[in-house]
Amino acid sequence: MGMVGGGRDAFIGAVHRMAAQMDGQIELVCGAFSSTPQKSKLSGKDLLLPPERVYGTYRDMIRKEGRLPEDERMDFILIVTPNNMHYPVTMAALDGGFHVICDRPMTVNLDEAQNLERKIKMTGKLFCLTQTYTGFPMIREARNLVAKGKLGTIRRVVTEYPQGWLAERLEASGQKQASWRTDARFAGVSCCIGDNGSHCHNLAEFITGLRITEVCADLNICVNGRTLDDDGSVLLRFDNGARGVLWASQVAIGSENSLSIRVYGDKGTIEWKLEDPNTLLLSLLNKPTEVRHTGGPGVGKAAKSATRLPAGYSEGYVEGLANIYAEFAKAMAKAIDGKVVDESKFDYPKVRDGIRGMFFVDTVVKSSASESKWLAVPE
Amino acid sequence: MGMVGGGRDAFIGAVHRMAAQMDGQIELVCGAFSSTPQKSKLSGKDLLLPPERVYGTYRDMIRKEGRLPEDERMDFILIVTPNNMHYPVTMAALDGGFHVICDRPMTVNLDEAQNLERKIKMTGKLFCLTQTYTGFPMIREARNLVAKGKLGTIRRVVTEYPQGWLAERLEASGQKQASWRTDARFAGVSCCIGDNGSHCHNLAEFITGLRITEVCADLNICVNGRTLDDDGSVLLRFDNGARGVLWASQVAIGSENSLSIRVYGDKGTIEWKLEDPNTLLLSLLNKPTEVRHTGGPGVGKAAKSATRLPAGYSEGYVEGLANIYAEFAKAMAKAIDGKVVDESKFDYPKVRDGIRGMFFVDTVVKSSASESKWLAVPE
Amino acid sequence: MGMVGGGRDAFIGAVHRMAAQMDGQIELVCGAFSSTPQKSKLSGKDLLLPPERVYGTYRDMIRKEGRLPEDERMDFILIVTPNNMHYPVTMAALDGGFHVICDRPMTVNLDEAQNLERKIKMTGKLFCLTQTYTGFPMIREARNLVAKGKLGTIRRVVTEYPQGWLAERLEASGQKQASWRTDARFAGVSCCIGDNGSHCHNLAEFITGLRITEVCADLNICVNGRTLDDDGSVLLRFDNGARGVLWASQVAIGSENSLSIRVYGDKGTIEWKLEDPNTLLLSLLNKPTEVRHTGGPGVGKAAKSATRLPAGYSEGYVEGLANIYAEFAKAMAKAIDGKVVDESKFDYPKVRDGIRGMFFVDTVVKSSASESKWLAVPE
Amino acid sequence: MGMVGGGRDAFIGAVHRMAAQMDGQIELVCGAFSSTPQKSKLSGKDLLLPPERVYGTYRDMIRKEGRLPEDERMDFILIVTPNNMHYPVTMAALDGGFHVICDRPMTVNLDEAQNLERKIKMTGKLFCLTQTYTGFPMIREARNLVAKGKLGTIRRVVTEYPQGWLAERLEASGQKQASWRTDARFAGVSCCIGDNGSHCHNLAEFITGLRITEVCADLNICVNGRTLDDDGSVLLRFDNGARGVLWASQVAIGSENSLSIRVYGDKGTIEWKLEDPNTLLLSLLNKPTEVRHTGGPGVGKAAKSATRLPAGYSEGYVEGLANIYAEFAKAMAKAIDGKVVDESKFDYPKVRDGIRGMFFVDTVVKSSASESKWLAVPE
Repeated sequence: MGMVGGGRDAFIGAVHRMAAQMDGQIELVCGAFSSTPQKSKLSGKDLLLPPERVYGTYRDMIRKEGRLPEDERMDFILIVTPNNMHYPVTMAALDGGFHVICDRPMTVNLDEAQNLERKIKMTGKLFCLTQTYTGFPMIREARNLVAKGKLGTIRRVVTEYPQGWLAERLEASGQKQASWRTDARFAGVSCCIGDNGSHCHNLAEFITGLRITEVCADLNICVNGRTLDDDGSVLLRFDNGARGVLWASQVAIGSENSLSIRVYGDKGTIEWKLEDPNTLLLSLLNKPTEVRHTGGPGVGKAAKSATRLPAGYSEGYVEGLANIYAEFAKAMAKAIDGKVVDESKFDYPKVRDGIRGMFFVDTVVKSSASESKWLAVPE
Repeated sequence: MGMVGGGRDAFIGAVHRMAAQMDGQIELVCGAFSSTPQKSKLSGKDLLLPPERVYGTYRDMIRKEGRLPEDERMDFILIVTPNNMHYPVTMAALDGGFHVICDRPMTVNLDEAQNLERKIKMTGKLFCLTQTYTGFPMIREARNLVAKGKLGTIRRVVTEYPQGWLAERLEASGQKQASWRTDARFAGVSCCIGDNGSHCHNLAEFITGLRITEVCADLNICVNGRTLDDDGSVLLRFDNGARGVLWASQVAIGSENSLSIRVYGDKGTIEWKLEDPNTLLLSLLNKPTEVRHTGGPGVGKAAKSATRLPAGYSEGYVEGLANIYAEFAKAMAKAIDGKVVDESKFDYPKVRDGIRGMFFVDTVVKSSASESKWLAVPE
Repeated sequence: MGMVGGGRDAFIGAVHRMAAQMDGQIELVCGAFSSTPQKSKLSGKDLLLPPERVYGTYRDMIRKEGRLPEDERMDFILIVTPNNMHYPVTMAALDGGFHVICDRPMTVNLDEAQNLERKIKMTGKLFCLTQTYTGFPMIREARNLVAKGKLGTIRRVVTEYPQGWLAERLEASGQKQASWRTDARFAGVSCCIGDNGSHCHNLAEFITGLRITEVCADLNICVNGRTLDDDGSVLLRFDNGARGVLWASQVAIGSENSLSIRVYGDKGTIEWKLEDPNTLLLSLLNKPTEVRHTGGPGVGKAAKSATRLPAGYSEGYVEGLANIYAEFAKAMAKAIDGKVVDESKFDYPKVRDGIRGMFFVDTVVKSSASESKWLAVPE
Repeated sequence: MGMVGGGRDAFIGAVHRMAAQMDGQIELVCGAFSSTPQKSKLSGKDLLLPPERVYGTYRDMIRKEGRLPEDERMDFILIVTPNNMHYPVTMAALDGGFHVICDRPMTVNLDEAQNLERKIKMTGKLFCLTQTYTGFPMIREARNLVAKGKLGTIRRVVTEYPQGWLAERLEASGQKQASWRTDARFAGVSCCIGDNGSHCHNLAEFITGLRITEVCADLNICVNGRTLDDDGSVLLRFDNGARGVLWASQVAIGSENSLSIRVYGDKGTIEWKLEDPNTLLLSLLNKPTEVRHTGGPGVGKAAKSATRLPAGYSEGYVEGLANIYAEFAKAMAKAIDGKVVDESKFDYPKVRDGIRGMFFVDTVVKSSASESKWLAVPE
């Protein structure tokens, strides 16, 4: 694995490294860790990499690694840069003959996303989007329960993702995360819905197997001086007629990372919260609510195969992300063996998921500015 | 106190009796407990009332009680009938010279509500609407914290009230509650928003002191055969620019009575859930969340004066409702003493709160049917 | 009902009045509310009693009420004085021909308790001890689950009751509750185990149907200047071989009223906490934990008949206590009708429960002072 | 790092590998993964190790690695075998000149433990015991709060560790974990107190800085056919006069891994539960309870430096263990540089902690068999 981004002061880079290496199947062999070559060097040193494989730019890395013998060079590139770099780095990587695993959101606009989809088709390379929460055991369990019909016909989805870290104008202090995420040049058309709301969208579709077809949105800018939304609410309509509510915020004081989803069907309900990620509540009609736990009794195969520890040993974010990597590593192993890989057989988020996310964010932003009540989300 | 409704199979009647009598200041002296005189008699007997003060109809009760000597007759009438009877009984009671305390919603339509307001002004009688949740100590604490500026400027309100008791077509079984609440003739223009959503509306305005000025709604009928909403979502805009989400459901399997509200300001956040009614979470900017409890440390006077037991003795619904009665009893005591009562000095919900609730429900129903994104809620 | 104790500054008196009157079957008709006749008068006035039935002393009340015509005089006496008065008032009441309902603990020592049992047998009067928590619906459900064998053979009981209100030397400030409860003359041989621990003992035996036969105790006095325990731990052995732990504290800062019990059998486990009194967790072997709620699905008859409100309407302490009163009122009704009452058919705590509690507290205090590891609890 | 134990069906081995490698500072280079050489080979292959560094026995590994050039051979040995092998492998490793990191409990009896301490002193090698929970950020925060005097003088400690995995006679099915843990030959003198209770002991002393000086224990064997305890309770006395309760169980149906600790002082209380490991409740006298979160506001340096992700990203067991490895890696780095290492300056559990744990378990087992109430825990 070669890495673009994720240098010294980028928290998410370290998380990806932990997750990628968790199962001992993926090794970091090189990187271009920063937009500043000097910082990249220092980061590489922290990571005990040989200096010759720490590159000043991603272009450099792709070119030079490409010239190494096949069994020495990196097998794929991990991209954990600010959003605006996802597209150019992915395009260059694919052109350079490398598979890609990329942090979300996939790109900063739809055009890029659609170009990228075409490029992936053309090159036949693997592309995985790290929608981390789809790797959590209890999210897999939730999807499984819906798929088996335990909830019956879905009637309502409520999903929310409040955070409070941007309750003040943190970007004014120069904090790096806050700076690029609130800046349209790096973050795209949205801050809060793009960053938080898109997780809600992804979980809602992932768990229910339904598609959000129409939205009615009201985005806000709560903190003076911002140009992108830092808070917003969306009414949802699904392709089976179900309705829903999605809201997200970055100014919700007291909320750290409070992603949650509730799915209501005509036979039962499930509830999941990131704050207690190894618990899934299942309420069937006229029965007491059941508390399902990662690794505990009653839980199905899909969740079990995404579980590393015995019940009660509190698996968390890194393990969830590691499940995405583990599945990608399986596909990679086939590709490295020279086999043709049918990506649809591997359970990790792909370019289509990325495009659906882009369509959603784009439509929500348009809806918020529109007088029309409902806007359709393109397929 | 004389009672209209609340006979044998009407759960809410018994609850009102417990609450009214909790502090030993109000005594049930007569009643017309049912639309069936025979059932009224039996209910009166259950309640150990003398047979001559158990009436067959409310008109009878008002007329005959009115003829009793002043110190014998009932002082006020409690109305706990199905919604459609709130208006005619209240009008008759006021005309008969009696003060009124009435279960919510106040009436089944706006015309009635406005007539009722005029009649109250004309007669000068007291009118209390039992918006029970405003009597809960932690709701009083919440209002107090907002009023003192602890949360700063309010940015967002999220309030929800899912229940699951109508997830199936319970009314088909003849269950009385389900039958009238899903029937426009008895319930008015809405079932779920009228019954559940109006509590959310009331709490949002009660706690924040703000007014909901615009709504964008999407109501649903989930169960076949119904004509009124049993589920719905509403985007909210407040008079200070704050935004919000309100959703309610009667088909949310697993939810018993899950009213909750979260209020986010630029200095802090509060969170309250009916499922844990004696806890209020307060999160101030850059501070750990505080857990405030009914009767516990840190809690202000407004909550304390609505508290009967020491901290940890789990007060509930009856005590909350009893706080409304206790305040109404204070106003009544003055009125009985022959003094002029300035109702604004007493902290119980009044006809204006009822009218605001009616406007809200009415506008939400219209919004749901409308192509326009935002509808204004009349004042 | 005539009341002894429960005057102006005695919180528990008001709670008993609310509970007794909750179902409209019991009426307060007279009282001797305080050891100070003047204070008794004022309390009686607060309660809207006719002055002639507010007595200066309990002896006065018993004598004068006894002379009233049978259908005018009080039917029974409620005793809510400090502990040391429970015995003399009960004895006088029984001698005066009145039934008694008495707050716990029954007496301040064993001799009194045993005399009292003899007196009850002799007079044939009814005697109810208000072990409030046995009236909670989910405690009834717990007992029912054990009795039906759902948990199998009980292996372990863990019960605790931490409070923090005596963490400082509150009695030095003259606070009335703290003053008498920490004073052996009024409270008996123990403060914390007598007041808190005895609830744990009672629940453990009530739910499991087992008896605690041996104890090994370590009581503490944490606050300087006290002579009675304010904290303590006890190892338990039950008559079926089960083991357990009981601990209680009045110096546990942050705990308001945190009574809880967990019962572990070889087929399943139940868990109940007073802080969330309408929830009972049931974990059966190799099944996900079930969440049972007052009034919710799956709950048995015993709990249902102790439930007044629909699921989710948060019943609390007053309702629990009211369930004791309701059952006592049933027995009273029979007695008033002149029938012979077989007390064993009524589900309220009786003199035997009081004696068991006294034996437990007494043995724990002795055990704490003893070098022997285990002391037997007398039957 | 070379590994002894942790082959294919040993869950804890994989967990240690994840934790050790999490921060990219430790690499697995060789191993003797099983008592069966064939299984060791297969495990080594799973882990992508070169075949020549997968050994059939630990003796082989120590001998052959010792002959490799210094910069090629393993730097230290990780021991994750059943308990009875901890001692011989550690002794051989130290004799062979290797530092050691060893899973707990350190040995199966006191003699071994004391021999081991002497050997460590003699060889001057580093020795780390993986008491995982001491690596959790909120446990570090707890220790820090006590050390800063926030809780005042400690009065009471309550710690428990129920699990339910041995509620049935799982060892009869041949399940490997159950088989050796319930067998005195592999597990030592205790199953439940040794495995679960020793974690409670360790946390109690780690957080409070106090020492448990006396115990009074009652151990049980709940499941027929066992010879070691599977459940037990212990009264505790601490060197400052504080009292406590510790209980643990492996037959507590419904409990997965429910380690918890509460520490009560005269100024405040803390509460921590493994089921919600990133939360620490802090209740100061006469203040509302504060909810502190890993990475959240108010949390001190000790916890912060043990935190990898932003607040709300749910760190768990692996991260906690990784914090032990990270600290050990720092000490190792110094040792590898040829410097003299003062182990007391590094914050990981050491041989003394292991010995204290052994003394505790040993005394508890003796106490349970004794008629004496209190037994002293040797220093």
